[in-house]
Amino acid sequence: MMRAVTRIAASYRIRSDARSIEERAKAIAVEQSVEMPVAAIDDRKVLDEIVGRVESIEDRRDGTFAVRIGLATATTGLEPGQLLNMLFGNSSIHDDVTLEDAEFPAEIARAFGGPRHGLAGLRKRCGAPTGTNARAMTCSALKPQGLPAASLAKLAGRMAEGGIDYIKDDHGLADQAYSPFAERARHCGRAVRAANKATGGATRYVPSLSGNLDQMRAQIRATRDEGIDALLIAPMVAGLATFHALVREFPDMGFMAHPAMAGASRIAPPLLIGKLFRLLGADATIFPNHGGRFGYSPATCRALAAAALGSFGALKPCVPVPAGGMTLERVGEMLDFYGSDVMLLIGGGLLAARENLTRETAAFVGQVTGFARKQ
Amino acid sequence: MMRAVTRIAASYRIRSDARSIEERAKAIAVEQSVEMPVAAIDDRKVLDEIVGRVESIEDRRDGTFAVRIGLATATTGLEPGQLLNMLFGNSSIHDDVTLEDAEFPAEIARAFGGPRHGLAGLRKRCGAPTGTNARAMTCSALKPQGLPAASLAKLAGRMAEGGIDYIKDDHGLADQAYSPFAERARHCGRAVRAANKATGGATRYVPSLSGNLDQMRAQIRATRDEGIDALLIAPMVAGLATFHALVREFPDMGFMAHPAMAGASRIAPPLLIGKLFRLLGADATIFPNHGGRFGYSPATCRALAAAALGSFGALKPCVPVPAGGMTLERVGEMLDFYGSDVMLLIGGGLLAARENLTRETAAFVGQVTGFARKQ
Repeated sequence: MMRAVTRIAASYRIRSDARSIEERAKAIAVEQSVEMPVAAIDDRKVLDEIVGRVESIEDRRDGTFAVRIGLATATTGLEPGQLLNMLFGNSSIHDDVTLEDAEFPAEIARAFGGPRHGLAGLRKRCGAPTGTNARAMTCSALKPQGLPAASLAKLAGRMAEGGIDYIKDDHGLADQAYSPFAERARHCGRAVRAANKATGGATRYVPSLSGNLDQMRAQIRATRDEGIDALLIAPMVAGLATFHALVREFPDMGFMAHPAMAGASRIAPPLLIGKLFRLLGADATIFPNHGGRFGYSPATCRALAAAALGSFGALKPCVPVPAGGMTLERVGEMLDFYGSDVMLLIGGGLLAARENLTRETAAFVGQVTGFARKQ
Repeated sequence: MMRAVTRIAASYRIRSDARSIEERAKAIAVEQSVEMPVAAIDDRKVLDEIVGRVESIEDRRDGTFAVRIGLATATTGLEPGQLLNMLFGNSSIHDDVTLEDAEFPAEIARAFGGPRHGLAGLRKRCGAPTGTNARAMTCSALKPQGLPAASLAKLAGRMAEGGIDYIKDDHGLADQAYSPFAERARHCGRAVRAANKATGGATRYVPSLSGNLDQMRAQIRATRDEGIDALLIAPMVAGLATFHALVREFPDMGFMAHPAMAGASRIAPPLLIGKLFRLLGADATIFPNHGGRFGYSPATCRALAAAALGSFGALKPCVPVPAGGMTLERVGEMLDFYGSDVMLLIGGGLLAARENLTRETAAFVGQVTGFARKQ
């Protein structure tokens, strides 16, 4: 019986002169598949079904070319690390090549499965309305690292009293001696539950995972007893396979992806932080909003949000979480830009209010809910 | 009792004008530590012991500045992923910042442990002389992916008959349907053992790990029965924590690191591929040699080899493995460049000999051993 050969359409941007581009494109198709002189390959099946194929070359008239290459799905073994390896492993070493986009055959979305909960699931958890009354969600970050668990818990409690939807650990909070994961999860989880009880709210605390797969599993099990149902993970630090394994093993948990180490990879952010993190199971994906501490353009942010939310097989939408130096002053503009299918993250901007943290948090929440009612 | 506060000296290169550089440097020190407005931090201990410190700024007179920042060792939790996260996690998103180098306090080398076997151990395994007779080692790569295990095993057997020291899987060989890991390890392991028996040689087969930590553990266990004692892994694909966990769990195994996804990270290759992979346990580290398919300069290659081999606490030296389009014609020049503490890797260049693979392999081996005798 023949199995159909499907291919991933990977789009690269290559800096090159017009004379060399065909050869460069072919070289990348070979590098990202068999990685050896094609002339030395006898096997018909390898030549027909495995060697990458240049599908199109388009001159962008800016010294670069858009090159589309068909990579055999079979070479990925339907495994997250190998998928990345086949898309960009060796070519990542060429500093004149970027990976711009990839279109995946249906079996990729089916095999990896995407978010367990997604946009609707995260709204439900924090009691945010869905449907025609849907509003944007709110998020803040617990920091600075170096504080003991009890001090972080106090901050978390005050944010929860302000009615925020999600409080995530700063991605710098790991399993350090001054605030070990399990102790932090216990303290912060309890502080948030106590605040919820007092206010009738449904704030969720989202601790940050670190270490290897076994250590992260142990961390997740430790959170269960504290009523925690969502976690922060940096997939490019943890490894894509580790991230995906956790998503499949802990179906009740929500996962928020952090972009640490994802920005330097010369993979277009909409593809990596939007599409790929979603494919592997991110219910929400954090990225640096334009005009903050990082250099993403409005167009990149828009494309990233579209990749996270748009149609992708049967995958649930992943919530875009613009962040990175946002302030209350920008809430209206951000909601205009992203609409309501978004989670706004203001970290340092709230913490800077110090003793007025609860009031500042409530002001943030009020702006977001008020904006929703105005629409 | 007071515990001494130690710091990692991380060196960044920042594109900036002279007017802004102090502010930029401070911003990165904050980004890579507490990631929030320092003015909003009350805690004396956090301010003194956790916030990153700008230690020096040097104008490089090329539009960039060398900035040295002291990052508290405690923030790493002595965990591989978090170490990378603290060195460059968020700042990797700034495309005008590169991480150039890092000097580590003694506790980092002690905590992570480095290679189990290193240069001397890998020489011993393949029967290469050490001491005053030491010579460079030889390596080739099994490919193309898409071939069934039995066909790859035939190639491995012929390379082993040619007397090569190490045969590694192409890093594209994972756990694909056309050549599952366990089947490949069995076939190739046996072919190499049979060739060794016939020639009296000691060629080692080095299969490529893929998947998550559990899958890699199962792969390693499957290799044990086949007399395999070294493995290939791409740390930036697998995740640094996964890589390190395997090194510590399987002390009898040698680990060869592959640079897939390590080239795009805007971390200087000598630091990432030389120093950091060695710190986490790479016995050998593969990198693209100058003048091949990739764009590393001779200076980068020299610095990378020095980082892999040079003094680093009590860590064993890690073998530099220049590769990426090397040919027999370059053997003499490469040995002149790297000396004998090196493993030369020629993959496609040998496979292109097709039916003469054994003879071509023997010629490669002969050149390397002949060169050693001439010295």
